[in-house]
Amino acid sequence: IQAVVRRGLATAKPPSSLFAPLDTFPDRHIGPDNAEAAFMLSKLGYDSMDAFVDQAVPPKVRVSSDAITDDQISPLSEFELFYRAKDLGNANKPFKSYIGMGYHNAVVPPVILRNVMENPAWYTQYTPYQPEIAQGRLESLVNFQTMVMSLTSMDIANCSLLDEATAAAEGMVMAFVATSQKKKTFFVDDGVLPQTLGVLRTRAKGSGIRLVVGDASSALGDEALRSDLCGVLVQYPDVNGNIKDFGHLAESVHAAGALVIVATDLLALTMLKPPGEWGADIVLGNSARFGVPVGYGGPHAAFFACTDKLKRKMPGRIIGRSRDVTGKPAYRLALQTREQHIRREKATSNICTSQALLANMAAMYTVYHGPHGLRRIANKVHGLTQLLKVIVESYGFRTTNLAFFDTLTLDVTGAAPDSSVVHAAATAAGINLRPVDSKHVGITLDESVGPVDFLRIANAFAASVKAPTVTLENVPATDSAVAVPQDLFRTSAYLPHSVFNKHHSETEMLRYIHHLQSKDLSLVHSMTPLGSCTMKLNSTSSMIPLTWPEFGSVHPFAPKDQVRGYSKIIAELESDLCKITGFHACSLQPNSGAAGEYAGLSVIRAYHEARNESHRDICLIPVSAHGTNPASAVMAGLKVVPVKSLQDGSLDLEDLQSKAEKHKDRLAAFMITYPSTFGVFEDGVTDACKIIHDNGGQVYLDGANLNAQIGLTNPATCGGDVCHMNLHKTFAIPHGGGGPGMGPICVAEHLSPFLPSHPVIPTGGDKAIDAVAAAPYGSASILLISWAYIKMLGGQGLADSSKIALLSANYMAHRLSGHYSLRYNNVNGRVAHELLIDFAEFDKAAGLKVSDFAKRLQDYGFHPPTVSWPISTCMLIEPTESESLEEIDRFCDAMIKIREEAEEIISGKQPRDNNVLKNAPHPMSVIAVSDAEWNRPYSRQTAAYPVPWLQEKKFWPTVSRVDDAYGDLNLICDCPSVEETAHPDA
Amino acid sequence: IQAVVRRGLATAKPPSSLFAPLDTFPDRHIGPDNAEAAFMLSKLGYDSMDAFVDQAVPPKVRVSSDAITDDQISPLSEFELFYRAKDLGNANKPFKSYIGMGYHNAVVPPVILRNVMENPAWYTQYTPYQPEIAQGRLESLVNFQTMVMSLTSMDIANCSLLDEATAAAEGMVMAFVATSQKKKTFFVDDGVLPQTLGVLRTRAKGSGIRLVVGDASSALGDEALRSDLCGVLVQYPDVNGNIKDFGHLAESVHAAGALVIVATDLLALTMLKPPGEWGADIVLGNSARFGVPVGYGGPHAAFFACTDKLKRKMPGRIIGRSRDVTGKPAYRLALQTREQHIRREKATSNICTSQALLANMAAMYTVYHGPHGLRRIANKVHGLTQLLKVIVESYGFRTTNLAFFDTLTLDVTGAAPDSSVVHAAATAAGINLRPVDSKHVGITLDESVGPVDFLRIANAFAASVKAPTVTLENVPATDSAVAVPQDLFRTSAYLPHSVFNKHHSETEMLRYIHHLQSKDLSLVHSMTPLGSCTMKLNSTSSMIPLTWPEFGSVHPFAPKDQVRGYSKIIAELESDLCKITGFHACSLQPNSGAAGEYAGLSVIRAYHEARNESHRDICLIPVSAHGTNPASAVMAGLKVVPVKSLQDGSLDLEDLQSKAEKHKDRLAAFMITYPSTFGVFEDGVTDACKIIHDNGGQVYLDGANLNAQIGLTNPATCGGDVCHMNLHKTFAIPHGGGGPGMGPICVAEHLSPFLPSHPVIPTGGDKAIDAVAAAPYGSASILLISWAYIKMLGGQGLADSSKIALLSANYMAHRLSGHYSLRYNNVNGRVAHELLIDFAEFDKAAGLKVSDFAKRLQDYGFHPPTVSWPISTCMLIEPTESESLEEIDRFCDAMIKIREEAEEIISGKQPRDNNVLKNAPHPMSVIAVSDAEWNRPYSRQTAAYPVPWLQEKKFWPTVSRVDDAYGDLNLICDCPSVEETAHPDA
Ligand SMILES: Cc1ncc(COP(=O)(O)O)c(C=O)c1O
Ligand SMILES: Cc1ncc(COP(=O)(O)O)c(C=O)c1O
Ligand SMILES: O=C([O-])O
Repeated sequence: IQAVVRRGLATAKPPSSLFAPLDTFPDRHIGPDNAEAAFMLSKLGYDSMDAFVDQAVPPKVRVSSDAITDDQISPLSEFELFYRAKDLGNANKPFKSYIGMGYHNAVVPPVILRNVMENPAWYTQYTPYQPEIAQGRLESLVNFQTMVMSLTSMDIANCSLLDEATAAAEGMVMAFVATSQKKKTFFVDDGVLPQTLGVLRTRAKGSGIRLVVGDASSALGDEALRSDLCGVLVQYPDVNGNIKDFGHLAESVHAAGALVIVATDLLALTMLKPPGEWGADIVLGNSARFGVPVGYGGPHAAFFACTDKLKRKMPGRIIGRSRDVTGKPAYRLALQTREQHIRREKATSNICTSQALLANMAAMYTVYHGPHGLRRIANKVHGLTQLLKVIVESYGFRTTNLAFFDTLTLDVTGAAPDSSVVHAAATAAGINLRPVDSKHVGITLDESVGPVDFLRIANAFAASVKAPTVTLENVPATDSAVAVPQDLFRTSAYLPHSVFNKHHSETEMLRYIHHLQSKDLSLVHSMTPLGSCTMKLNSTSSMIPLTWPEFGSVHPFAPKDQVRGYSKIIAELESDLCKITGFHACSLQPNSGAAGEYAGLSVIRAYHEARNESHRDICLIPVSAHGTNPASAVMAGLKVVPVKSLQDGSLDLEDLQSKAEKHKDRLAAFMITYPSTFGVFEDGVTDACKIIHDNGGQVYLDGANLNAQIGLTNPATCGGDVCHMNLHKTFAIPHGGGGPGMGPICVAEHLSPFLPSHPVIPTGGDKAIDAVAAAPYGSASILLISWAYIKMLGGQGLADSSKIALLSANYMAHRLSGHYSLRYNNVNGRVAHELLIDFAEFDKAAGLKVSDFAKRLQDYGFHPPTVSWPISTCMLIEPTESESLEEIDRFCDAMIKIREEAEEIISGKQPRDNNVLKNAPHPMSVIAVSDAEWNRPYSRQTAAYPVPWLQEKKFWPTVSRVDDAYGDLNLICDCPSVEETAHPDA
Repeated sequence: IQAVVRRGLATAKPPSSLFAPLDTFPDRHIGPDNAEAAFMLSKLGYDSMDAFVDQAVPPKVRVSSDAITDDQISPLSEFELFYRAKDLGNANKPFKSYIGMGYHNAVVPPVILRNVMENPAWYTQYTPYQPEIAQGRLESLVNFQTMVMSLTSMDIANCSLLDEATAAAEGMVMAFVATSQKKKTFFVDDGVLPQTLGVLRTRAKGSGIRLVVGDASSALGDEALRSDLCGVLVQYPDVNGNIKDFGHLAESVHAAGALVIVATDLLALTMLKPPGEWGADIVLGNSARFGVPVGYGGPHAAFFACTDKLKRKMPGRIIGRSRDVTGKPAYRLALQTREQHIRREKATSNICTSQALLANMAAMYTVYHGPHGLRRIANKVHGLTQLLKVIVESYGFRTTNLAFFDTLTLDVTGAAPDSSVVHAAATAAGINLRPVDSKHVGITLDESVGPVDFLRIANAFAASVKAPTVTLENVPATDSAVAVPQDLFRTSAYLPHSVFNKHHSETEMLRYIHHLQSKDLSLVHSMTPLGSCTMKLNSTSSMIPLTWPEFGSVHPFAPKDQVRGYSKIIAELESDLCKITGFHACSLQPNSGAAGEYAGLSVIRAYHEARNESHRDICLIPVSAHGTNPASAVMAGLKVVPVKSLQDGSLDLEDLQSKAEKHKDRLAAFMITYPSTFGVFEDGVTDACKIIHDNGGQVYLDGANLNAQIGLTNPATCGGDVCHMNLHKTFAIPHGGGGPGMGPICVAEHLSPFLPSHPVIPTGGDKAIDAVAAAPYGSASILLISWAYIKMLGGQGLADSSKIALLSANYMAHRLSGHYSLRYNNVNGRVAHELLIDFAEFDKAAGLKVSDFAKRLQDYGFHPPTVSWPISTCMLIEPTESESLEEIDRFCDAMIKIREEAEEIISGKQPRDNNVLKNAPHPMSVIAVSDAEWNRPYSRQTAAYPVPWLQEKKFWPTVSRVDDAYGDLNLICDCPSVEETAHPDA
């Protein structure tokens, strides 16, 4: 037997020496092996990969074959990566931060850590577009919404936003829109977090909102201000820990016809009168202290709740309780009509990917602790804060905020010459306090504080004044009354729902997690060929370091010298992404693709402004663009002008030219997706970019499809000036069932001065725009995943991955041809990394919609491809490089078999209204009935086991087709109440 | 809302201070909360826990209530445990060991680490006694067997033994038995591992075998020896790395009518002519280098293969391919009749728990790498060894073994004054070599050796002779020919089976793992109330440290100063186990309960011997004892005399007295299980022990049921002299689907000098018996789990756990009374921690067997309790303290509903031969058929959804009832061949 390297392409060379590692990642990441790739090529009529690639990618945009090689990015083996990550983790100093400012040390219950955060069955899924095979995570997200609604006392909540700061910006824009964009002043209380203010500034600029910052309790008397006021944002408790009674303020703001928006803390709300009880219209914040690691800034699930009146204006995704066609309760994404891909240039928010996985973790944390457990935690945090106050006051420090929950802001002047003395003592003790100014320091306690931690904190203060050491024996007594103003003490109950009051043993919790998991189809089962989503392998090697405390426990505002590990990873990732895109500089701040679009367009606006061309405000966008594109343009203050497509799916260059010329003086930007959202590399991309440049515009390249490009072309070569990358697509961050994601942007040199900064930790260029996310490097901890992915593939592996992604899509197009109509391809008959199939003919012939085919695929155990986007009658299919030939064939076989089933309906052998497609999917509850109830013109076997391999590998949808219309009409977004879940006989 | 501590008993006190941790483990480990416990007590008619316990546990054996308290064992919170474990991990020095001797550094593929080893759906199950709900792991174990058969070229293999040394002992006894125990000489080649020899010595002693050690190639000419020879054991390659041609030896041994037993290395067999091709009758070894961490000695799966002729004598479990009643292929435990619980005192092996989880990991490793991947790994290991040889020979070291695979034994005299110089250089480089003697050192390379490692090794040798540094640039060229003798080079193919040739991408591997997992019911789904198995929570907190490299990468023979972390854990665990049992000293060496029995009885024998009473060889064992008891007694060289039980299930003290007196002069021991295997605390236990002691015997207490005792009584108080503990029962090591386990023994002071030692790392007392396991502390790494379990519960939590375990069992007995016949209870009507229910009446009434009820429970989503043991018509049910009241009630509801179903059959409403019980379980494939095929007198709903909660939470068995008889008649123990798996149309 000869040792054979079996996988990939150029990557699949035999080990060059005895020292070459054998645990080479490309061999594991790429699905088809050499023989399989050769087989696919031969089916397409090619005798080499090069010949194929030459016909798939236009020569005009091809980069030289050594653009991305192992010399550029040299590969690490999986083992090497593990130890490299370990070294970098150790390079982060293990300080404990009590900085607060929206970020707390979390205690992740181990059962949730292992079974959710470290479990591919939870982290590999896409957004639950197909509710019948996603009831598990939908239920969990409803738990999240319910928890938020109950703690804030609001009518409705969504199932997460990207971070607290962008959530506040969404709130601001909602207030602006609620007053019909007529009243332009938005007031921000000076107790709001600085990073929130930074993000508001950027967004206010784009939206034409006038931001006023001041003391809300005094400043709002001003009549001029009141008459133009659309909303007010307050923080409760505020950045200094103070708890103010905003009840009167709320009345006054309402009287002015404006909205009250409250940023708050869920743990504090177990003790504090919830904003919903004192007049808030919108309540938002960060849920991460509910069991999600701080992770140098994220990912975290922001929450967002509002009154019933505002619900149809709420950004982000909402999960609703509806029913299936048999009447069984079923969850699904509600109010999809609000999504940008419907409203497009009228959209006022661009949220697509959000933070589902982290929302699920916070929900599970709430399920595990229940209301009593949360209250115990809050009591302890509050009690320790009180005790600390007594101790430090005994040294002469003065607490400036008399009401508090977990945060003290201390005037040091009675105890120490200067706050730097206190910080120095803290640093010596291995802890970080909040820098305020030369006279003040801040400190925020959290669930993780044990006796050792507490003494370390207390003794840092003691040391700063040379007081004797505090021990557990000599801690003073505290007044046990809470330090919350009487009127603001919570009296209402919360979280009475059954789900929060039973799963409190680890065994019960484990089973609840696995029970929900068992309802959901994920990458652990079969391919998820969602076009435009790039659902590739999320390798274990890249996921392992993520949950090490060395990375998880770092505060985003920790001093630079404590985060050398992170800094190195960030620098390397930025550099690699620049190599891959051909650009000059990178910002890792945006937390999603859409956030990247907004950031990139904001950079373009700043560029024009810097050249005294701030009047440039027109953005050309092809009609085929993803809905986030026009939405982001609007958010950045641009006016969207659509550009047509030609019959063959390509951009109408004439239309582009005429519109570019027409708007020459106001042209700011052009947004293009490449390969196009139709799955084709357009020849005209460089011409299009030239047209734009010639007319004074900048080109934004939507990088959602970057997986087709690496090593073959790049956004710079195509003619772009800026692009975002969806790290949760191309660079293998698992999608988490709807987030997290990361959407960093890379830019050409002339745009690099404008890359976003951050109010606390400076980032970006020297003419930087304000922040676009709460944390300086966005959801920094998951950058590790993409960093590891790139490092383990190396240049060659990256390029090979793109080639196989192209090959797999073309092979699929080949296999499906003759059965289905491919909507678009290039002059050589080739698609890019995905293919668009049109089902219009079946509607015409027999009333069969594309969704009927999609739902039927569920019966075959597959997650349906993207449906009805970018064309309503179409399916967009993207296999990625990670799927094996066997899996691709299995999918094609299923599609072909469904085509046969459709033929039976078209030919009249099966009725139009009662057939396997229209009735799909078939859950087991529908199958396991008597013949009388069955009552269908096909057999149970045909319904459930249409192909033989299902006998071995069957995945059951848990509900029948979900009724969306019913759910939107009867919008219910929380989980069943105690009464609803009571035993019928109880 | 008041913060309420909701769980447990004495543990459920409110936090004593602000500093008390909130992540207290007892609250998560114990299922019922205070209110639920009070409810259960009230149903039983008690108003306090104490009142209940007083009636369940005989006053005679009660220990004082402060025997096990938080003062004795103070509890750590989950968070505290994490950091304590981290500190102890860091206290193990990160040396890399190239000691070999059967232990190699493993590279665990991350996808297997995360999805098998760290996945409760794989690690929480018991042995697959119920094949219909365990087809996943059964398939994987067959992959293991197939891999072993193919690499060794043997006819049949079992699915693991405890370790290589005990496997060798099993081989020796098989040889002895195969020659009808007439020929008593067993020859061990001096190339065999020292720890194997140690274990053989102990076992030979018990079995009356004469062990001769020498050079097999020369010594076997001796006629006297030949005529008494039952078998020969050789190591291939041997401990020094040498590869000898034993072909002629095999012929000669066979000519003498004896068996050839070969200890070997699976990786080497990808290159070496397999033992099956040169005459081996039995082949065994350690499979751990196939992706299982070395873990300071284990757990590892030993493999064991033999010829077809010997198959019905093979020890351990064998998985066979059979079919279900519908004819569908189905795997199950084969040849169960060989088990000790059938053969009892005729058994010659006591294997019960083995190493299923580790066998599954090794099987998955083989699936992931395939034959080509394994060969690549072997080539690399071998190539690096050749290169090292060239380098060190250039320094004047001389390789004493000219043929080798991965191991060199070097004569240092041409290069250095003494081997200590070389070891010193190695230590300075952070590596361990194998100590041989003052003139020789050994070194063994493995898959983990990368360039940095290699250079570190080479440069340690360079440093020892003050030679210049070796770099990647100046490494010499090697002769590429392999260093394996031409005649011993493997020419035959291996692992052609489809399963080993397709799952090579991570995506495919991930899906294969999850696909198998989806077939298996485990603790992530519902309770597994297997009586005598104590299937409690396996907490995540206790599992997390296990897979840290700080614990995983330590060689069992590493110098003491490198293993301070392990030493501390071992010392603490020994001490805590002594506190819990009331005994004086502990040995952590035995790898299972049965191995503990054998160890304990061997200690008793040594004790008698030391008192010149070696003639004491009678062991009294109640007829109700677990089958491992008599088997272990036989293995320790004792003659078993059964003791009767009374009508009420208790020990017949008169029979005991008369037999003890009758055998007074030869009485060695009495074995008793407490509470008894009938689930009752017997009043007479102390009297029984007195009888034994009065007659010169020692009392062995089988601790399988220790979970009923902690803090209430203990083995010492009951009158025992020695007991084992099943750490995989009472102390929460997950059972892994059939192992790993640990069966340490604790002994009274007079027995402590005899605790087992170890030939390499001394352990035990000053009159120690020889080793009972390959590694000094058995499967040392999983000791971490029990250590963490005890530390996190603390004394009070341990005692509370036992109380709730008793309460839950009694509550269950109460709920089932009136529906089923409880077979035994105590004078107060109380059972212990489990209950025995008799189904004989149903057989009489309607031909319904206990197994029909068990199989029907599968349809309700429960793992059936222990069936037909200890009484053939009974079910033994053990809920443990970890199950919530809701789950216990759900189980009771299912049992009661099945009782109703049985009534329909008894009353004649349903036919006797075609009913829901006889046809159970009902897999989906049986349900999803047409009415014509259905053809049963009950509906599909009745079959699959007999109770409403199944609509929400249904687990499907994947096959119908498995046909055991067919499988035993047609024994097939490997996975389908390529031909069998070929597509029908291929
Ligand atoms: C073409 C395109 N652009 C932008 C986006 C938005 O990315 P994100 O979901 O990360 O906000 C998507 C998401 O699917 C997309 O397909
Ligand atoms: C009473 C009793 N003794 C001994 C054993 C053997 O333990 P092990 O499986 O760990 O060898 C068992 C196992 O179930 C048992 O129930
Ligand atoms: O996520 C998308 O909307 O494609």
